[in-house]
Amino acid sequence: MSSAACNGLEGMTLLLLDITMSLDGFVAGRNRTLEQPLGEGGEQLHEWLFRLAGFRAQHGLTGGEENADSGAYAWQSGAGAVVMGRRMFSGGAGPWENDPNAGGWWGEEPPFHVPVFVLTKHPRETVELQGGTTFTFVTDGIESALERAREAAGVRHVQLAGGANVVQQYLRAGLVDELRIHIAPLFLGDGVRLFGDGGPDLELVEVIDSPSATHLRYRVLNREGDA
Amino acid sequence: MSSAACNGLEGMTLLLLDITMSLDGFVAGRNRTLEQPLGEGGEQLHEWLFRLAGFRAQHGLTGGEENADSGAYAWQSGAGAVVMGRRMFSGGAGPWENDPNAGGWWGEEPPFHVPVFVLTKHPRETVELQGGTTFTFVTDGIESALERAREAAGVRHVQLAGGANVVQQYLRAGLVDELRIHIAPLFLGDGVRLFGDGGPDLELVEVIDSPSATHLRYRVLNREGDA
Repeated sequence: MSSAACNGLEGMTLLLLDITMSLDGFVAGRNRTLEQPLGEGGEQLHEWLFRLAGFRAQHGLTGGEENADSGAYAWQSGAGAVVMGRRMFSGGAGPWENDPNAGGWWGEEPPFHVPVFVLTKHPRETVELQGGTTFTFVTDGIESALERAREAAGVRHVQLAGGANVVQQYLRAGLVDELRIHIAPLFLGDGVRLFGDGGPDLELVEVIDSPSATHLRYRVLNREGDA
Repeated sequence: MSSAACNGLEGMTLLLLDITMSLDGFVAGRNRTLEQPLGEGGEQLHEWLFRLAGFRAQHGLTGGEENADSGAYAWQSGAGAVVMGRRMFSGGAGPWENDPNAGGWWGEEPPFHVPVFVLTKHPRETVELQGGTTFTFVTDGIESALERAREAAGVRHVQLAGGANVVQQYLRAGLVDELRIHIAPLFLGDGVRLFGDGGPDLELVEVIDSPSATHLRYRVLNREGDA
């Protein structure tokens, strides 16, 4: 059963935010650099992911665990296309920015394996990388990026991957259908805050918990297609 | 079995934060007034509580529900004493401030039914109210308030009730043993943020979820008494 069917929203290509946040609301720590694109302590947010067999396989690695987090990881593996911001693509102002053949911060075989649409102000040719990931650079705004991602996703959903600035733009525009927030049990204290000036009405539809994270799935209410 | 026994911290009187937060991290909305002490939208945070039979009984009301949230409500009902800030006591700069017989914002029979220690700069006589609640005003700091609350609590735990400023002081001082955060599925967008400049290392020990809230219980690591 597709995500759309699960939501009673058959026929729509859903836009699903999927992001990990600290208990105090940050998606990256302070002092982001090329060496440390998630800032101080930011890598710790994703420890729940790093140890999963599914995550490791998606990154071309063997081993890893199957545990309660695997179910929450499966939430994001169903995406048919991904939308992200420029900084999430490049990991900051990296040398990738001007290299027409590089896949940004993500290396030669990025873990997405689907078309990725990168919001940016700088036009650039689409990059095709190993394993099915393409990076297409969209310069005419969030609605255009979403439209193109929806076409590419077909019957699957579109994953809104971040960063915070892009998430806030999509929330303000009322374009997000579901929030999948993974709360890591730690404080970052400062850095990049996920949520800005509010958000839509929510309905909590699923919780998966483990010692590593609490995975919350909220449906956005009052969206087109709601009963 | 007492909370202390559950934590493997026998012999200590634990300080347990118990507070409800919006998904975007606020414990009260913007524009707090006497009529609306929790600010715009702030009352909605506690809807999970208002409908519970246990909560209603504690407030002298009949009716209400037993549901998944009741278990999380039981977390706070085991306290032997409560610590709170001045504003949480008074609901703002209310007429109660100068009335030596009044119980602040909480009326003639406050719902605590145990000794409450209020952090304030203004000395005032202890107020004894119906149903076992006393308000004692502590002017010599958070450690003194905690010490007095611990004596009053005996074998039970001390509940740190808020507001955010008091919570942040106790976190910075390393005095909190457990965080019990109830995440309401809504955005406030602005107001009083619960967490300030970081916090301790945490271990997620229990999650209770319902459509109304996600109840997270974190043990603070590296505390006196840890293995």
